[in-house]
Amino acid sequence: MKLSDFETLQPCLEEGTLAIHLNRPEARNALSDQMIDELMEVFGQLEGNRSVRAIVLRGNGGHFCAGADLKSMNSANSEPESAFKSNRRFGDLITAVGHLEQVVIAAIEGAVMGGGFGMVCVSDFAISTSTAKFGMPETTLGIPPAQIAPFVVHRIGLTQARRLALMGERISGTEACELGIVHQCVDSSEALDTAVQEAIKRVKRCAPDANAMTKALMLSMAGQPSQESLDHAARLFSNAVTGEEGLEGIQAFKEKRSPHWA
Amino acid sequence: MKLSDFETLQPCLEEGTLAIHLNRPEARNALSDQMIDELMEVFGQLEGNRSVRAIVLRGNGGHFCAGADLKSMNSANSEPESAFKSNRRFGDLITAVGHLEQVVIAAIEGAVMGGGFGMVCVSDFAISTSTAKFGMPETTLGIPPAQIAPFVVHRIGLTQARRLALMGERISGTEACELGIVHQCVDSSEALDTAVQEAIKRVKRCAPDANAMTKALMLSMAGQPSQESLDHAARLFSNAVTGEEGLEGIQAFKEKRSPHWA
Amino acid sequence: MKLSDFETLQPCLEEGTLAIHLNRPEARNALSDQMIDELMEVFGQLEGNRSVRAIVLRGNGGHFCAGADLKSMNSANSEPESAFKSNRRFGDLITAVGHLEQVVIAAIEGAVMGGGFGMVCVSDFAISTSTAKFGMPETTLGIPPAQIAPFVVHRIGLTQARRLALMGERISGTEACELGIVHQCVDSSEALDTAVQEAIKRVKRCAPDANAMTKALMLSMAGQPSQESLDHAARLFSNAVTGEEGLEGIQAFKEKRSPHWA
Repeated sequence: MKLSDFETLQPCLEEGTLAIHLNRPEARNALSDQMIDELMEVFGQLEGNRSVRAIVLRGNGGHFCAGADLKSMNSANSEPESAFKSNRRFGDLITAVGHLEQVVIAAIEGAVMGGGFGMVCVSDFAISTSTAKFGMPETTLGIPPAQIAPFVVHRIGLTQARRLALMGERISGTEACELGIVHQCVDSSEALDTAVQEAIKRVKRCAPDANAMTKALMLSMAGQPSQESLDHAARLFSNAVTGEEGLEGIQAFKEKRSPHWA
Repeated sequence: MKLSDFETLQPCLEEGTLAIHLNRPEARNALSDQMIDELMEVFGQLEGNRSVRAIVLRGNGGHFCAGADLKSMNSANSEPESAFKSNRRFGDLITAVGHLEQVVIAAIEGAVMGGGFGMVCVSDFAISTSTAKFGMPETTLGIPPAQIAPFVVHRIGLTQARRLALMGERISGTEACELGIVHQCVDSSEALDTAVQEAIKRVKRCAPDANAMTKALMLSMAGQPSQESLDHAARLFSNAVTGEEGLEGIQAFKEKRSPHWA
Repeated sequence: MKLSDFETLQPCLEEGTLAIHLNRPEARNALSDQMIDELMEVFGQLEGNRSVRAIVLRGNGGHFCAGADLKSMNSANSEPESAFKSNRRFGDLITAVGHLEQVVIAAIEGAVMGGGFGMVCVSDFAISTSTAKFGMPETTLGIPPAQIAPFVVHRIGLTQARRLALMGERISGTEACELGIVHQCVDSSEALDTAVQEAIKRVKRCAPDANAMTKALMLSMAGQPSQESLDHAARLFSNAVTGEEGLEGIQAFKEKRSPHWA
């Protein structure tokens, strides 16, 4: 598949940097099945590639990524086994981003929810505008942030992760920087462009093999959520989304009303 | 046991929130054997209860909890096996608080020592007045903070935990917030009331089952001190408290003099 | 070996505090083989010693430690097995510092690179001047920070460690304090002296056995890089330093030119 053939992504390769723009601005770049497939395809093409030194992840239309596509959720999740597979795919995606051999720079503005939040949590360098909004709104919908929460726990620790999930918190880019979700906070979309270019320059001072080796070494030391734990989490999710709370939560969201527990 | 039957606790259930006030203000809510028993009893009653959405832990009389009851320590710890059992019970208590299925909010002011510090370290959301005092004074008494230190290490990491324990530090609520021991710092006892009410509101946006599931999932990802490691720690404690340093340290404390090492 | 016999160290024992000054100021206290041997020798003498309450690590000549001695690197690393052994020795050194039974205070100014950075990451209390410079410049030389990175990951987490290594960052003492690499930041070399004296006073409030026990307990809870993982890392290093990137990187450094990847 050529870079120009992607439909939900706008990839652009220039001077050793692959910028991958999520390109479903009408849905705030929510992760459709097709977008996940295309991301996995482009990541596969990057294996062993040392001429690409940095990968920039960004969203078109002023938002990074709104997470799962709730509009298609009820139909996709009508029975537990399909809900399990659909949810588990998010864990595969975030795991793949985390294990990219090149340096991953997340350039963040607007909505950073669910799976979008998860991808940020495995980036090597994350820059956010101060007004971006981060959150795991799943529990307010009656479902657990099953494939996301493990990566948030690994990024910022249990103490902050449990607060964010169990209270349905939304936090700004400024607070995301204080909590260590992102490394740098900037004031505008233009400042974001500049910061990305400066970050790429710093990456290029480092040797490509040495960087790939160091990244793999650090991941092996620090660990990341295991396949087994993500399977377990997806099983919890499929039970929840086909259960009483999940049905009520997503229905209430569609009807723009409060669920009965709120 | 009915809520009104507790002697060392003042539990109050209202609109889905169970407020548990430690009620030994004359001892700054130090954890007596009876208080630990009563806390374990009320926690047992909460298993599987989804109508209780949040649990607020607070101390009566302007202090959260001064930790172990030093006044009764020498007699209780006169022989190693009884010291082991008495110490190990603290680890059971903190483990039980950490695994409560409901969202635990710690409302903190005054003294937060030893076991009190430990309970804060497993809360889901902790709010402290800026003037509260946190510490693990055990090493200044010739004993290790055996059942507490593991939970402090899990809460804030080895780097800060080792400093606090090995230098006998006392830190304020403001610093506790900077270190990530607590999530929010307020200026007064009244502001603490308001912050608790706001936190409860946010908890109630989230579905009860989804929250219980998410909390258990996060704990399984992040881990907590194991039973074996707490057993080992209690063994160290019982050796120390019946040994030369422990006897001297606690005696010096009672006689309001410096121990010989200081 | 008597304290006065050390050549690359200036140890000074006074009132229960052993100050160890790295004493190769002409090389910014770079870790020569002899210096590593002498540090291991003095650490061995400290085993079981409870009359020494605190160990102060500091560098002579305004620098803490510049890391490996690059000038001697190409010769030492001309064949993989000798590169492996030479690199692995750094992991042994840092492991030994981390497991010292006494409280280790790092007094930091100037350069804090590679192995110097690693030693800071296992200290119990670290004080830095605001202008000190911390970094893992290895990747800019075509080699991984193999024996250092694991300890940095354990000190400050994967999120910040990956940024520092993969972008060749140098950070100030002020930022090192914000990231939790050091505990306290001071304005001058004189303020560093004062802060060290105050830290020693606080250590002495705590009982020596209780402190040794608590430190070992916390290390067992939090873990530190395993021997196996350090072996693996040294193997990666030896491949890199005898490979194309390592040869080019170190050559470029000696010739004061940019390597071909920059």
